[in-house]
Amino acid sequence: MANGLFISFEGIDGSGKSTQARLLAERLREAGRETVLTREPGGSPGAEEIRQLLLTGDPARWSAETELLLFTAARRDHLERTIRPALKAGHAVITDRFADSTRVYQGATRGELRDTVDRLHALMIGAEPDLTFIIDMAPETALARGLARRSGEDRFEEMGLGFQQTLRAGFHALAEQFPDRCVRIDGDRAPEAVAADIAAIALPRAGLAP
Amino acid sequence: MANGLFISFEGIDGSGKSTQARLLAERLREAGRETVLTREPGGSPGAEEIRQLLLTGDPARWSAETELLLFTAARRDHLERTIRPALKAGHAVITDRFADSTRVYQGATRGELRDTVDRLHALMIGAEPDLTFIIDMAPETALARGLARRSGEDRFEEMGLGFQQTLRAGFHALAEQFPDRCVRIDGDRAPEAVAADIAAIALPRAGLAP
Repeated sequence: MANGLFISFEGIDGSGKSTQARLLAERLREAGRETVLTREPGGSPGAEEIRQLLLTGDPARWSAETELLLFTAARRDHLERTIRPALKAGHAVITDRFADSTRVYQGATRGELRDTVDRLHALMIGAEPDLTFIIDMAPETALARGLARRSGEDRFEEMGLGFQQTLRAGFHALAEQFPDRCVRIDGDRAPEAVAADIAAIALPRAGLAP
Repeated sequence: MANGLFISFEGIDGSGKSTQARLLAERLREAGRETVLTREPGGSPGAEEIRQLLLTGDPARWSAETELLLFTAARRDHLERTIRPALKAGHAVITDRFADSTRVYQGATRGELRDTVDRLHALMIGAEPDLTFIIDMAPETALARGLARRSGEDRFEEMGLGFQQTLRAGFHALAEQFPDRCVRIDGDRAPEAVAADIAAIALPRAGLAP
């Protein structure tokens, strides 16, 4: 898609991925590259409407399959209305979470649905990022650093440390499954050091000096 | 599923299918058969929430693909929470619209998506009614009889007579594609006469004397 560059950030809650997504967007913009910073679920007006269904009310009112369809509907809208137009215009797009989050979260909760997740993605989404940064951190560290404490939609503590460990293992497996686009980054350092590593990989891909 | 019987009603707006669905439900109940009368989009609390997204606001804000995912999410919830539990309990389920509506409406607006519609249905829904009544009526007749005038979510007149004619042709094609379960009923008669024809087919299927 022209010279557009599509980058996603993934990782467990509190890994600092949202901060790193923002820092990379700032860095690209400072270097003169037009950059769209977005996130999932949401990222377009329609997807934000669907996000409200997913993140308000009792989450147990949706089965895993219905939830998967709603996430995919939101992602399709995000892709059509926000990501693809920006890439076609040659911009960089940085998203805080994309389809990998669905793969890993469903894998941790309803692993037997993985084939359905993959087939639904192939049928209705198709697109993958050019580059995916997986910010890696032990859940205990994320919690101790207070990054995961700001209780909100993610409900880190409610879901438990064991669940976060399963997610972390899922992100490791993902990096092995998609080695061409996934880069694991040690998130247990000062944000500036993490950002420097990310910029050193991302900037050349955007045709910029690191 | 035990002795459950799953019946859908399909047809263009104003064909009288909602009336006929209700009349058959009453007839089955009078004969002592426990019957759930439901409809799409909606039919379960979660599906009704999704229905609001689809039927309020500017419908053009969703692409055909995103709309298809939202309809499928609502249908999955309807199937899990309303239809399957009732069938498992041995009840009759009568629904005003089901997956055939998606097939025919998408066929009339974005015909090239038909393969996607079928694959998504096979992946996430699977179930088909045991019996589908397609209430057939010329759109001009429906309009002249005033059945389609009560402007509401369906917006019959806004969508135009030509579009309704395309839908009618789509329902004809559907009856030919699924001859084992689809029965075309001439809807251009007194409701009691239409209901008698439907009962003569449905009651024996429910193990009742017609």
